[in-house]
Amino acid sequence: MAATDTSAAPRLLPSYIQDSWWTPESPEKVSEILDASTSEPVCRVSTEGLDTGAAVAHARSAGQASLGQLTIHQRALRLKHLAAHLHEHREELYELSDRTGSTRRDHLIDVDGGIGTIRTFSSKGRKELPNANVIVDGQVEQLSRDGSFLGEHIYTRLSGVAVQINAFNFPVWGMLEKFAPSFIAGVPTIVKPASQTAYVTQACVRLMIESGLIPAGALQLISGSARDLLDHLDHRDHVAFTGSANTAQLLRSHDNVANQGVRFTSETDSLNAAILGPDAAPETVEFEAFIKSVTLEMTAKTGQKCTAIRRVIVPSAQVDPVVEALRARLESRVVLGDPRDADTTMGPLASLDQRDEVSRAVDKLVDAGGAVRVGGPDSGTGSADAALGAYFPATVLSFAEARTAEVHSVEAFGPVTSVLGYSDIDDAVDLAALGGGSLVATVCTHDPEIAAEFTRGIASHHGRVLFLDRDDAKTSTGHGSPLPHLVHGGPGRAGGGEELGGIRAVKHYMQRTAVQGSPDLLTGVTGVWHRGAKAVTATPETVAEGTAVHPFRKSLAELRIGDQFASGLRTVGLQDITDFAESTGDTFYAHTNEEAATANPFFPRRVAHGYLLVAWAAGLFVEPAPGPVLANTGLENLSFQTPVTYEDSIRVTLTAKQIIPRETDDYGEVRWDTVLHNQHDEIVATYDVLTRVAKENKPEWV
Amino acid sequence: MAATDTSAAPRLLPSYIQDSWWTPESPEKVSEILDASTSEPVCRVSTEGLDTGAAVAHARSAGQASLGQLTIHQRALRLKHLAAHLHEHREELYELSDRTGSTRRDHLIDVDGGIGTIRTFSSKGRKELPNANVIVDGQVEQLSRDGSFLGEHIYTRLSGVAVQINAFNFPVWGMLEKFAPSFIAGVPTIVKPASQTAYVTQACVRLMIESGLIPAGALQLISGSARDLLDHLDHRDHVAFTGSANTAQLLRSHDNVANQGVRFTSETDSLNAAILGPDAAPETVEFEAFIKSVTLEMTAKTGQKCTAIRRVIVPSAQVDPVVEALRARLESRVVLGDPRDADTTMGPLASLDQRDEVSRAVDKLVDAGGAVRVGGPDSGTGSADAALGAYFPATVLSFAEARTAEVHSVEAFGPVTSVLGYSDIDDAVDLAALGGGSLVATVCTHDPEIAAEFTRGIASHHGRVLFLDRDDAKTSTGHGSPLPHLVHGGPGRAGGGEELGGIRAVKHYMQRTAVQGSPDLLTGVTGVWHRGAKAVTATPETVAEGTAVHPFRKSLAELRIGDQFASGLRTVGLQDITDFAESTGDTFYAHTNEEAATANPFFPRRVAHGYLLVAWAAGLFVEPAPGPVLANTGLENLSFQTPVTYEDSIRVTLTAKQIIPRETDDYGEVRWDTVLHNQHDEIVATYDVLTRVAKENKPEWV
Repeated sequence: MAATDTSAAPRLLPSYIQDSWWTPESPEKVSEILDASTSEPVCRVSTEGLDTGAAVAHARSAGQASLGQLTIHQRALRLKHLAAHLHEHREELYELSDRTGSTRRDHLIDVDGGIGTIRTFSSKGRKELPNANVIVDGQVEQLSRDGSFLGEHIYTRLSGVAVQINAFNFPVWGMLEKFAPSFIAGVPTIVKPASQTAYVTQACVRLMIESGLIPAGALQLISGSARDLLDHLDHRDHVAFTGSANTAQLLRSHDNVANQGVRFTSETDSLNAAILGPDAAPETVEFEAFIKSVTLEMTAKTGQKCTAIRRVIVPSAQVDPVVEALRARLESRVVLGDPRDADTTMGPLASLDQRDEVSRAVDKLVDAGGAVRVGGPDSGTGSADAALGAYFPATVLSFAEARTAEVHSVEAFGPVTSVLGYSDIDDAVDLAALGGGSLVATVCTHDPEIAAEFTRGIASHHGRVLFLDRDDAKTSTGHGSPLPHLVHGGPGRAGGGEELGGIRAVKHYMQRTAVQGSPDLLTGVTGVWHRGAKAVTATPETVAEGTAVHPFRKSLAELRIGDQFASGLRTVGLQDITDFAESTGDTFYAHTNEEAATANPFFPRRVAHGYLLVAWAAGLFVEPAPGPVLANTGLENLSFQTPVTYEDSIRVTLTAKQIIPRETDDYGEVRWDTVLHNQHDEIVATYDVLTRVAKENKPEWV
Repeated sequence: MAATDTSAAPRLLPSYIQDSWWTPESPEKVSEILDASTSEPVCRVSTEGLDTGAAVAHARSAGQASLGQLTIHQRALRLKHLAAHLHEHREELYELSDRTGSTRRDHLIDVDGGIGTIRTFSSKGRKELPNANVIVDGQVEQLSRDGSFLGEHIYTRLSGVAVQINAFNFPVWGMLEKFAPSFIAGVPTIVKPASQTAYVTQACVRLMIESGLIPAGALQLISGSARDLLDHLDHRDHVAFTGSANTAQLLRSHDNVANQGVRFTSETDSLNAAILGPDAAPETVEFEAFIKSVTLEMTAKTGQKCTAIRRVIVPSAQVDPVVEALRARLESRVVLGDPRDADTTMGPLASLDQRDEVSRAVDKLVDAGGAVRVGGPDSGTGSADAALGAYFPATVLSFAEARTAEVHSVEAFGPVTSVLGYSDIDDAVDLAALGGGSLVATVCTHDPEIAAEFTRGIASHHGRVLFLDRDDAKTSTGHGSPLPHLVHGGPGRAGGGEELGGIRAVKHYMQRTAVQGSPDLLTGVTGVWHRGAKAVTATPETVAEGTAVHPFRKSLAELRIGDQFASGLRTVGLQDITDFAESTGDTFYAHTNEEAATANPFFPRRVAHGYLLVAWAAGLFVEPAPGPVLANTGLENLSFQTPVTYEDSIRVTLTAKQIIPRETDDYGEVRWDTVLHNQHDEIVATYDVLTRVAKENKPEWV
C-alpha cells in the first residue's frame, strides 16, 4: 500500500487517554494488522506522539481521586453491571475476534471467560471484603502485657497506576482478568494490548467506557507501542506483564523496575506438563480423560495458550498407546479452516509471523531428536489456504530420550505437543521439574497416595496442579483454564508472578502495612473496633432507666463501632447443667459425672456445657422485641478459655466490632465482639457474633 | 602485616560448609577485621577456593532430605530448644559483639532480639500451622455444581536453598530472623554475613551447630565473599538480602535473579520518617514521647539501623522547639566511648570506613542546605579517641526548605537525623512519601481521625507505621524494632521485600499452588478431609450393634481423617423452643412471638434458636462416657443456612477433618467438620468443632 493512499487505508486504531479517544495525526511509523485467515487488512496501529507521562499523571490524579470516592463494594458492584453490559454486546466482540483466527469455542474462553471473571470478582469482592477501603489481614497481635500496645496488618491501595501489558492470544480475558482486581482495589489501569489483536481489546474498552460505569481516569488504553511508559513509573505503580520470557526480561531490566521499586509481575509462557499416572492404564476412565484433555489443550485457541500442554509425560510403556490415541482423536476431530466456516474446529494461528515461529520451534525439536508422530509442518492444512491464512496442523512429537534439553525449553506456541516416557514416579517428578517452573500441570490418577506423592514432588514448581480422575473428568474446568478463584502464574520459567486467586489478586494492587498502636488508634485506622478501645456502654440498668440505648435497638444509620452492651452476672447452678444435659441430650461425662469430670485434666469438677454458656450469653445480651437486628447468621472463632463449674457466674460484653452495609439490600452485616467473663473477671470465652441489621429503623421498632 | 608473618596473624575465620568447618589453606587475598573502638585486629576473612556450588548441592540434597523428615511442629520445636541453648551462651556473643562497637543495650537488640525472634517463630509455628508439611491457604472453592470438582490453595516448601546475605549491623538477629522462618518451612539455609562483623555470626553458627539441633545440611555459613554463589541458583532457591540499595541492585541484575527465576527479596536502607501530629504540641505526653523516640533511634546501634529515623517531620512552628528538645536530651545522655567502658552510652560506628561514609553523607546534606543544629562532624568525640575508634557525634540538622531533594535521598547511616517543617497534614504526607518508600514511619498523635488520615496517605509507602501516643508511649516496642509478629520491609527505596510477620514469613519459603480435583484427591493431597470425600461412617445403630466404632472412642493413634458419625433425626417441638427461651433467657421474638417471627424477612414463623441447634447437635453426636476426647475447646465458622421451625427435624454429621498431634503433650487438636441437615436433607448449619483428643486410649476408656 502506497504511503500516500491514506484514504483507502483501514482505520487507525484509537487509544483512550485522559478520558478521550486519541489517534496520531499523521504518523510516520504504522503497523498494519491483517486477518489471520485471509490476510485482509483489519486496521493500522500507531502511538506516535502519545504522551504516556500525561496518561500516568492522569491515572494518579483523576483516576485515584474518582476511584477513592467509592468503597470496595461499590467498585465491585460496578463490575457486576459491567459484566452485564459486556455480555449484552458480546456478539460484537465475537465478530471482531473471528478475524484473529479464533473459533466460536475460543471466543467463549476469551470473551465469555473475561466477562465471567469480572462477575466472579464482583461477587467475591462483596462477599469476602469489607465495604470500606482498608482491609485487615490476619489477627491482632497483643504486643504489651496490658493490651495498650497492639499490632496488626492492613492493606491499603497503591497510590499509583496499574499498567497491564498483554499478549495477543487473549485480547479480552487478558485485560479483564487484570482490570477486575485492580479496579476493586481502587487503582486506575492503563492497558497496553499486543498490537496483533488490539482491535478486539479496543472494542471492549469502548464498550466499557460507553457503559458509563468507569470513573474518570480509571481506565486508559494504549493501542500500539507503550513507548516510554515505564520511564514514568516508580514504587507506587504496578506492572503486570503477560507474554514471552524475552520481553519480560527486557521490562524487568528497565531501571525503574530493577532499581526504582516499580512492582513488576510477569506471567510468561511455560512448558506445562500433563502426567499420566502409573495407575491410569489404557481403557480406564482416566486414560480417556487424559487423551481428551491433551487434544483439547492442543486445539483450543490453536494451542496459543500459555497454559497449553507442551509435555505429555507418560509411563514408558504408554508412549505409543498415547500417541495412537492422540492421533485417532485429532484426526477424527480437527478441521483446520477459517473460523467463519461452519465446519472449522481449529482456526489459524494469529499471524503468518506466528506460524513461522511455531514452524521454527518444531524444527528445533526435530533437530534435537524429536520424531513427528502426528501432523507436522509438512502434513498439509487440508482445504485451508496456507498462502493467505496462518494455518498449522495439530502436531505430536515423541522423544526416545526424555531428558533431551530442548523438549523442556523450546516452546512451539501452537497446536504442538511432545510425548515423553517415564520409568517411575520419581522420574516423572524430575521430568516435570525440568520445565524450570510452570504455570500448570495435570496429574491423571485415581489414587490419593499417588496424588500426594506428586504434590510433594512437583507442587513447588507449579502455580497450579490439576488432578484428573473418573470423579472429576466430567466436571473439571480443564487443565488450560485459569479460574478467577485460583492463582494463575507460576515460578521460574512461568514468570514468577501470581494473578487471579480471588481476593488474593485484589491485594496485589494494595500495600500490606504493619500498624502498631493503642486500641483506640488502631480502631480509628482500621474502622474495626479493637478490644480495649473506647466503647459506649449500655447496661441492663441504664437501658431500663432510659439513659442508654441497647445497641440492638440501633439501625445501621445509628449504630457505631464501639457501641456496647455489658450484662450483669448470672449464676450457673448444678441443676442448670443437669437440665441442659437432659434437654439437649449432651450428657458428656464432664457435665454429668462428678468423679470422671474431676479426673479430666482440664476441668475442676462438673462444668457447664460450652453451648449452655453461649446460649445463656445470648439470653444475657438479647433485646427480645422486634428491632433492627434481623437475624443471627453465625458465629466465628469461638474459643473456650476457662471452664465454668456450678456456682460460678458469667456475664457477657458485646461490642459492635465491624459494620458492613450491603450495597444492594436494606440491611448489612454487623460483627459483634463477644466476651464472657466469670465472677473473677477471668475470660471464659471469646467469639464474634454475626448478625444482619436493618439500615433504617421502622417506626414500630423504636 | 607482612604476608609471611602468618603465625602472629589473628585467626582466619572459618566457614561452615557441607557440615564441616572450612578455611582456605593459604589464601592470597585476605581482609583484616578491626575492633571498632581500638582498631586492634579481631580476625581475618577469606573464602578463596570455596566451592559454593558444592554448598548449594549439599543444601538441596542433604539439607532438603534431613529437614523433610521432620514436620513443621518438629522443626518449630527445635527452634525453641535452640533459643534456650543460645540464651545460655549469650555472654559469649556479647563479648564478641563489644568489638563491633555495640553497647550492652545494643546487644539486647541484636543477640537477645535474635533469640526472642526464633522463640516467637517456634511458638507461632506450632500454634498457627498444622503439624504436617502441607499448609492449606484459604477456603475451598466449589468449582462444579455437584461438588465433584474443587479447588484450593496449598503451600509446600521450596525445593532449593534459602540464601541470606546480611548487613554488618545485626550479625546475630540478621541471621536468626531469616533462619527461623526458612527452617520452619523446611528449607536449608546458607548464610553469608557481612565480613566486618562476621566473627559474631560465626560464633553464633558454632553455638547452633554445637547444640546438635541443626540437621545435616540445614545450615551452612560463608565467612567472607559469597564468590560465585549466585551462579548456582535457580527458581527453586530464595535469596534474602539486607544491605545497601546499591548492592541490592547488583544482585538483582544477576542473570539468575533477573531471568532465571531465583526468588529475590531485599530489605535496604530507607529514609524513615517520624511525624509529629498537629495535636502533639510541646508539653503533651506525645511530644515528650516523640523526642525520646527520635533520640533513641539516633543513638541505639549508633544510628546504624535500617529502621532509624532519618527525617523528623514536624509542624513548621515546632521545628525549633523539637531541635532544642533533641539537643537537651542528647547532650544530657550521650556519652561516646568504647562500649567496654562503663560510662559509655553510645559506641563507635562499625569501622573507620563507615565513619568516613557517614561524614561524607553529612557533608552532602550540609551542601544541600542543611544546617547543623546539634553535633556535627567537627563537634568532637569527647574523651573517645577518634584516631583509633570510629566515633561520630550525634548530629541533628534542619532544613529551611523541606523539599530539598537530598534530605529525602541521602542516608547518613549513623547517629544523624534531619528536622523538616510541614504546613498541614497533606504536606506532611507528601514529605513522608518523598522518601520513595520506607521501612517504617512513626506518627505521633492522640487523635484517631488524624491517625486514619495519615494511614490513607502514607500506609502504601510503608512496611510499618507506628502510632505513638499517651496510651502506648510506655508500652510501645519502639519505632526501630522490627517484631517477629509483624512484617519488616517496605516498598521502593526500602527494597520492596517482606520479612518476618509471623507465619507470613514461613510462607515466603514455600510455593503457593492452586490444586484442583475431586474431594478424595484433595483430601489425599492436603491431609485435610474435604466434604464429599470418602468417609468411614458410624451411626447410632452400627455403634450399638458393635459393627462400628464411634470416632469419639478413638485416640489419635487410631483416629483417621474421614472417620465419621452420622446421627439420626430429632424433631424440634414448639415446646422445646419455648423451654430453651425460658431456660437461657434468650426470648428474642423470632423464637417467642409467632406474628413478629413471621413478619421477619428470614423466618417462616417461630424458629429454633441457633444455639439450641448446636447444643442439640452435640447431644446427637456425643459419646458420653470417658474416652480419648478430652474437651471441646472451640468452634469455628458457624454459619446458619436454613432456619429450623417447630416440627422440623435435624440430624448431624460429624467427620474428623484435621488431626494435629502436639509434640510436647499427650494429646492433640482434632477439627471436626460438622453439618446439620433438616428432614428434607437441606443444610441447616455448618461449622468446625475443635476438640482435644488423647494420643493413646487408656484401658478404662475402651
